[in-house]
Amino acid sequence: MKLIECRIAIVGLGLMGGSLALALKGKCAGVDGVDIDSTVIGFALTNQVVDHAASDPIQILPKADLVILGAPVSQILSLLRALPELHPGNPVVLDLGSTKREIVRAMAELPSRFDPIGGHPMCGKEKTGLANAAPDLFMDAPFALTPLQRTTSTARDLAEQVALTIGARPIWLKAETHDLWTASTSHLPYVLACALANAVPGEALPMVGPGLRSTIRVAGTSTRIMMDILQTNQENILGALGSFREELDHLEALVRGNEWDLLKEVLDQAADRQKKLSGGLLRC
Amino acid sequence: MKLIECRIAIVGLGLMGGSLALALKGKCAGVDGVDIDSTVIGFALTNQVVDHAASDPIQILPKADLVILGAPVSQILSLLRALPELHPGNPVVLDLGSTKREIVRAMAELPSRFDPIGGHPMCGKEKTGLANAAPDLFMDAPFALTPLQRTTSTARDLAEQVALTIGARPIWLKAETHDLWTASTSHLPYVLACALANAVPGEALPMVGPGLRSTIRVAGTSTRIMMDILQTNQENILGALGSFREELDHLEALVRGNEWDLLKEVLDQAADRQKKLSGGLLRC
Repeated sequence: MKLIECRIAIVGLGLMGGSLALALKGKCAGVDGVDIDSTVIGFALTNQVVDHAASDPIQILPKADLVILGAPVSQILSLLRALPELHPGNPVVLDLGSTKREIVRAMAELPSRFDPIGGHPMCGKEKTGLANAAPDLFMDAPFALTPLQRTTSTARDLAEQVALTIGARPIWLKAETHDLWTASTSHLPYVLACALANAVPGEALPMVGPGLRSTIRVAGTSTRIMMDILQTNQENILGALGSFREELDHLEALVRGNEWDLLKEVLDQAADRQKKLSGGLLRC
Repeated sequence: MKLIECRIAIVGLGLMGGSLALALKGKCAGVDGVDIDSTVIGFALTNQVVDHAASDPIQILPKADLVILGAPVSQILSLLRALPELHPGNPVVLDLGSTKREIVRAMAELPSRFDPIGGHPMCGKEKTGLANAAPDLFMDAPFALTPLQRTTSTARDLAEQVALTIGARPIWLKAETHDLWTASTSHLPYVLACALANAVPGEALPMVGPGLRSTIRVAGTSTRIMMDILQTNQENILGALGSFREELDHLEALVRGNEWDLLKEVLDQAADRQKKLSGGLLRC
């Protein structure tokens, strides 16, 4: 199926769903939206974010060739359970959730007429909601795609077209691998940023510079979204925390023991990895 | 002494010293520079970063009413020991070092004809060196000023004029307080960013997004500068690490124990503190 001939319904018009709608406008047969919040529906229609929109999914979903679920993980899991009642046909179903293992498991329970595939565009910004949506949000971002065994080549191809059309870089991997890696690259940094934000004493506020701001930035992520992530990726996150503690213990022991030459080596290694990991955004 | 009538010599034309020279141009009687690297001297003269420059401090320093030491902490300590031989007069001496207790102690040993005061502009960027210097580097940054008991009102006033002229926000505090607070707001984030950069497995590179990039950014700071900081603020940094570990232990226990309601409270608190600490840059 060519994307240009595809009618798309996006469920959840927040920052991600809204940005996706804007990025897909004119690149497909139409983009419709569903959101439980009627204010959001009003905003989406007034600002022509979507062609049609409603709070009741039954008014929107049945016409869709591609259903995209853009919501926190727990809501995506609920939507997947409800989907058989909301769409009588055989659409491709793609989600944008931050963890993939439980979502892909729930997708496996869908009736066989559905053609599901997991997805996760790795981008965002501090200010959430439809009012902050922007069509360039996905530019150069990794877009993880986690197919099921049953996922057809049609769904794989359509999901890849979506990722490429919005300027993202599709990355194919297993849901389990996605959750393992993002535990280190996304969920661990969040937990550390929160612990750091809570550890900095209030009276030190005058001495806050751009370094701390950058380090704790992700602690400002929506806790509603993060709670779902922590609950659906608990084991991997605890594992990533263990690896971090080993590195921190090592660093601290070197500082405490005046092992300056060895410490310099570890810090040089960290500076090198920082450059590699940051450059990685562009290279992959 | 009015800044506009003051001849300034900056020792060390790196990112900080070079940016300071650019920011002070036209706001004082003249800015001269000293750097051990003759390439840097050539660049500074060709690009009119300073009026006069030389590698040998004796050619530059004696004319200065204000000597500014812009170098890693260990080099500032060496320069302070050499200063009595390099300047026959009674200049104000200001430094830009990242820790203050040991520098202020060394300043206290200067002959009484010198009028010393500690300083630390809290800004920077990843790309160091004179080629990356910019006059707006200090804009809205906190500029810690740590006077000695012997520091005259002339030196206090001149240092404050420097901070205000370059667009920074002067913050007066004791050297000991500066080092205690920056252990939490600057040195701890660096250590954590290094441990995190070293903990992320290389194969997870495709799943790196803007969150991790932001969290580990400061791990790219010059290790030469950071080694001096870790060695001259060791005790405070170990204390700050202890506070961080308490917060992290608490968070981890809640994740491990499925204490989701309590976890949500701690994460909401962290999000709130993140906003306060980040807004603090503008408010102070």
